[in-house]
Amino acid sequence: MTDQKPRVAILVGSSSDLDVMKKAGDILERFGVPFELHVKSAHRTPEDVDQYVRNSEQLGVKVFICAAGMAAHLAGAVAARTALPVIGVPLSSKHLGGADALYSTVQMPKGVPVATVAIDGAQNAGILACQILAVADEKLRHELNEFKRDLAEGLKL
Amino acid sequence: MTDQKPRVAILVGSSSDLDVMKKAGDILERFGVPFELHVKSAHRTPEDVDQYVRNSEQLGVKVFICAAGMAAHLAGAVAARTALPVIGVPLSSKHLGGADALYSTVQMPKGVPVATVAIDGAQNAGILACQILAVADEKLRHELNEFKRDLAEGLKL
Amino acid sequence: MTDQKPRVAILVGSSSDLDVMKKAGDILERFGVPFELHVKSAHRTPEDVDQYVRNSEQLGVKVFICAAGMAAHLAGAVAARTALPVIGVPLSSKHLGGADALYSTVQMPKGVPVATVAIDGAQNAGILACQILAVADEKLRHELNEFKRDLAEGLKL
Amino acid sequence: MTDQKPRVAILVGSSSDLDVMKKAGDILERFGVPFELHVKSAHRTPEDVDQYVRNSEQLGVKVFICAAGMAAHLAGAVAARTALPVIGVPLSSKHLGGADALYSTVQMPKGVPVATVAIDGAQNAGILACQILAVADEKLRHELNEFKRDLAEGLKL
Amino acid sequence: MTDQKPRVAILVGSSSDLDVMKKAGDILERFGVPFELHVKSAHRTPEDVDQYVRNSEQLGVKVFICAAGMAAHLAGAVAARTALPVIGVPLSSKHLGGADALYSTVQMPKGVPVATVAIDGAQNAGILACQILAVADEKLRHELNEFKRDLAEGLKL
Amino acid sequence: MTDQKPRVAILVGSSSDLDVMKKAGDILERFGVPFELHVKSAHRTPEDVDQYVRNSEQLGVKVFICAAGMAAHLAGAVAARTALPVIGVPLSSKHLGGADALYSTVQMPKGVPVATVAIDGAQNAGILACQILAVADEKLRHELNEFKRDLAEGLKL
Amino acid sequence: MTDQKPRVAILVGSSSDLDVMKKAGDILERFGVPFELHVKSAHRTPEDVDQYVRNSEQLGVKVFICAAGMAAHLAGAVAARTALPVIGVPLSSKHLGGADALYSTVQMPKGVPVATVAIDGAQNAGILACQILAVADEKLRHELNEFKRDLAEGLKL
Amino acid sequence: MTDQKPRVAILVGSSSDLDVMKKAGDILERFGVPFELHVKSAHRTPEDVDQYVRNSEQLGVKVFICAAGMAAHLAGAVAARTALPVIGVPLSSKHLGGADALYSTVQMPKGVPVATVAIDGAQNAGILACQILAVADEKLRHELNEFKRDLAEGLKL
Repeated sequence: MTDQKPRVAILVGSSSDLDVMKKAGDILERFGVPFELHVKSAHRTPEDVDQYVRNSEQLGVKVFICAAGMAAHLAGAVAARTALPVIGVPLSSKHLGGADALYSTVQMPKGVPVATVAIDGAQNAGILACQILAVADEKLRHELNEFKRDLAEGLKL
Repeated sequence: MTDQKPRVAILVGSSSDLDVMKKAGDILERFGVPFELHVKSAHRTPEDVDQYVRNSEQLGVKVFICAAGMAAHLAGAVAARTALPVIGVPLSSKHLGGADALYSTVQMPKGVPVATVAIDGAQNAGILACQILAVADEKLRHELNEFKRDLAEGLKL
Repeated sequence: MTDQKPRVAILVGSSSDLDVMKKAGDILERFGVPFELHVKSAHRTPEDVDQYVRNSEQLGVKVFICAAGMAAHLAGAVAARTALPVIGVPLSSKHLGGADALYSTVQMPKGVPVATVAIDGAQNAGILACQILAVADEKLRHELNEFKRDLAEGLKL
Repeated sequence: MTDQKPRVAILVGSSSDLDVMKKAGDILERFGVPFELHVKSAHRTPEDVDQYVRNSEQLGVKVFICAAGMAAHLAGAVAARTALPVIGVPLSSKHLGGADALYSTVQMPKGVPVATVAIDGAQNAGILACQILAVADEKLRHELNEFKRDLAEGLKL
Repeated sequence: MTDQKPRVAILVGSSSDLDVMKKAGDILERFGVPFELHVKSAHRTPEDVDQYVRNSEQLGVKVFICAAGMAAHLAGAVAARTALPVIGVPLSSKHLGGADALYSTVQMPKGVPVATVAIDGAQNAGILACQILAVADEKLRHELNEFKRDLAEGLKL
Repeated sequence: MTDQKPRVAILVGSSSDLDVMKKAGDILERFGVPFELHVKSAHRTPEDVDQYVRNSEQLGVKVFICAAGMAAHLAGAVAARTALPVIGVPLSSKHLGGADALYSTVQMPKGVPVATVAIDGAQNAGILACQILAVADEKLRHELNEFKRDLAEGLKL
Repeated sequence: MTDQKPRVAILVGSSSDLDVMKKAGDILERFGVPFELHVKSAHRTPEDVDQYVRNSEQLGVKVFICAAGMAAHLAGAVAARTALPVIGVPLSSKHLGGADALYSTVQMPKGVPVATVAIDGAQNAGILACQILAVADEKLRHELNEFKRDLAEGLKL
Repeated sequence: MTDQKPRVAILVGSSSDLDVMKKAGDILERFGVPFELHVKSAHRTPEDVDQYVRNSEQLGVKVFICAAGMAAHLAGAVAARTALPVIGVPLSSKHLGGADALYSTVQMPKGVPVATVAIDGAQNAGILACQILAVADEKLRHELNEFKRDLAEGLKL
């Protein structure tokens, strides 16, 4: 995390998922995008989620990344409460191959989209957040284009 | 619905699901259990859901029945906000055979259970609500036992 | 287990599942709810299950928790023989990601509900049993509300 | 059905499944195997199932065919109560592509097999019952061999 | 479509999918976002896709919406060639419940995200595109917030 | 294996599956049923399978047990060539949770049933073979009834 | 079909599948590839399949196309008996979304490949057969390259 | 790899998949078929893939083997750009049992087939490539027939 106002808020449903989701933060750091990372659960701390989302625009947040497993409602709960873009990361658990979290994240009803990435796709969530911010940030877009060239030359994530 | 204070609150994620879920109300009526039936969406009207749940204990509600399809978060959103028992009815839509709503309803994390019934199982949700109320309602338990005998004698639901 | 008359009966399909399901008992103990825990199989000891269910109301049982894997029929077999609420815990085995036990537990026909929790969701089964008993037990409801606050403050199960 | 003592008992979980399962009876008739066809539900009429199974050996029953949908427990419930071979027919319903009934029928625990045929495979259940009886019935085996030749020559079922 | 430079490019894998995806265009029109809608296939017209993507930044495109069914590669093929955000809409076909298109769209490898919405989720793709553009477009953000209030008041999509 | 003419033929698709399927043989030994166990593959040694099946009736075989994984065709290939009852054991491999072998074994077309048991259900295949033989073997039926009582008293397989 | 020696043999498991598979023949005709189309079942007419495969090389057959549904063994049965390339077309039936036929066709064991195309992918089977023949047929390769250009220009299949 | 012009090109989506896919090369070596093996990604190095495919015919390539995991687009991307036969190997990853890569590889739209083999079926991809080349290579066909005999005599791959 950085001193600057966060442009991306990463919310994680459980502290046991922090390790996976720190990789989203690593990507944001690499592109110099300030962010916050919090453990907040749509099921265990719903009011905390509500309040954070309500204040997030004032904080400067432009994009959410929300990661949860099983009946993964966190991204949907946030998307229900903000018109900012919400990226959902379905996290795998040991049953059902991760299909439960994937379906719970992506199959949102009309009116309330969640931009879902792959199961455990923390890094791609970070990249997608940067791509979204880059729509109005030429420097970031330039860096993403360079990153794409690096990928093409064999850079490993 | 009846004049009495509702003992069961039936919440439905979309007005297009009312027809299926009225069957839960039919069961409650049959057993003389007063109830309310509302269309409220965890994704489209989240604050409305919050407020209703917050007031529900005062209203007299003892059990929730929540029905939704796809990334079906309604039951989980209610269960996150009340310690009353919450029954979840996963509703089928035309994709994925209903597995999306089932997984989104049943795979709740530790601490926040949802009592899930079969896909489109509106009637069983009504019966389960009665069974829960009957734990402390001898007359209702008696009627449920009679209903069970009727079932055994070929009564069709 | 306690000296008091059991209010909850936990039935487990196989002794190899005892470790998982003891966590349901731990929750009940935490809330001071007396219970019994037995290994009984719908497939290997069906008459034993029948007899136990037939006597359970006299024993004081108000809620069943039934856990089984694969073609998990135990919860359904109990629900077929009692009008008390029956909570089903689908247990995972090494094939099919636990979908077999989940479908066998939750997809009950009209008239005979099973209140299904997540795959291997022993603790949530315990909590749901408490929520059901709390409908007519103000002290227990109060404790569940406190538990919910603890969850919100980061208590880990 | 015939005047002779039934050698095969066909049990169907719901009267709505009779049409599908009459095709099993058609096969038995074709091979001159006396049978009974009853609607009995493991969930709605469990004691009726118990009693029928208990008396079946005296009736002359040698093989069971049990058909049910969703959390299809009928075949398992019968297999739990008899050492006669039990053939299970998983019936499709409109959700989950029939996978629920298939898993609930075939994934039986150690000690209690169910001989499962294809989803809605009523005719194959009838043929399998004949094959089992033919182990000790040379005339029936001969007819099954002829039937196999007919199949090879393009006979349609 | 409008006279203005397109800010969103909607690409559809097959002309038979145009009807579904016109709903994404309807949303964009409603929010006054200029867009283009083209039929281009990653499998049948790959060079056409390449060329369009290569020119898209010059055209003014800021966000892609790509819709395809079965082994739905269109969104991934576009995301491989641009650093702009790419929204993927998995389209259902009559087999596998749409799971094939969903997995082919969402399970992208590290480095190349696709922002996946629900199966056949054309409208949500349009809304998500608006949310992304609104990160740097206060007027659009304002309209999205109003749209959210409309949703909450029962507006149907 | 024993000196007597085999009454059951156990065929296994690959030598790597022998360990699992020896448990079927253990059951047969326990009930004194003579059997043969061979590695034969419907895909690698199809003519060997054909020839063995053609000779099996003369050998005295009354029941087949066929075990294979993945696109598990062995049971179907045998059932295509004999009117004797064929028990299929779908074997799990590391992908798809064993669903591939299950579907390939159980979903047989009209006219050619395979009596399918659970994934990796070697022991139940052995018990089912005994149940089939016991239709005309009173001593064996008696032993199976005793085994059922042992199961009920907690005997572990 | 044509007077010339067939270069492709199309085998279909059931006459009810002829309509779907005639589309494979239409493709072959369009490219002037002589072929035969027969109804032969791995399960109902296994010896007929064996004999046809044994004679096929002499007939001039270079590639097989085999189509079957459910536990679709036809392609595997043919591949077990020839070293010619075998294309498998999994046919959908009303259960399991076609996953049964797909898994039964594609999940072949080491040593015996089946070149599997999409569920009900009759036309692609025809094109793949042409591509295989074109490896040594410059004129056919030229026509396939033209067909590819036609596809790119919007030709519909 | 060999000095000769490659007849088969093996493309692998990620260097982490090289170990699995070297087994395809081992098969080609065994049959004396010259080949090239490259790491190229449809998502990370799309232009590299394009260019390689465009030059491949000149290089002498007659058959492609393409292996990728997750949203496995590599085989489809190659098939979109060449009329040569393309063999697809879906690679498993830790989620979804490999179903994602299987569906992404096999469910190709009309006009652009991919000859798909089993999940992680590297060796069968090699054999299938040889079978395709053998259509016009009598010596290779002879060797494949010998290999088939070896398989039948118990040779292990």
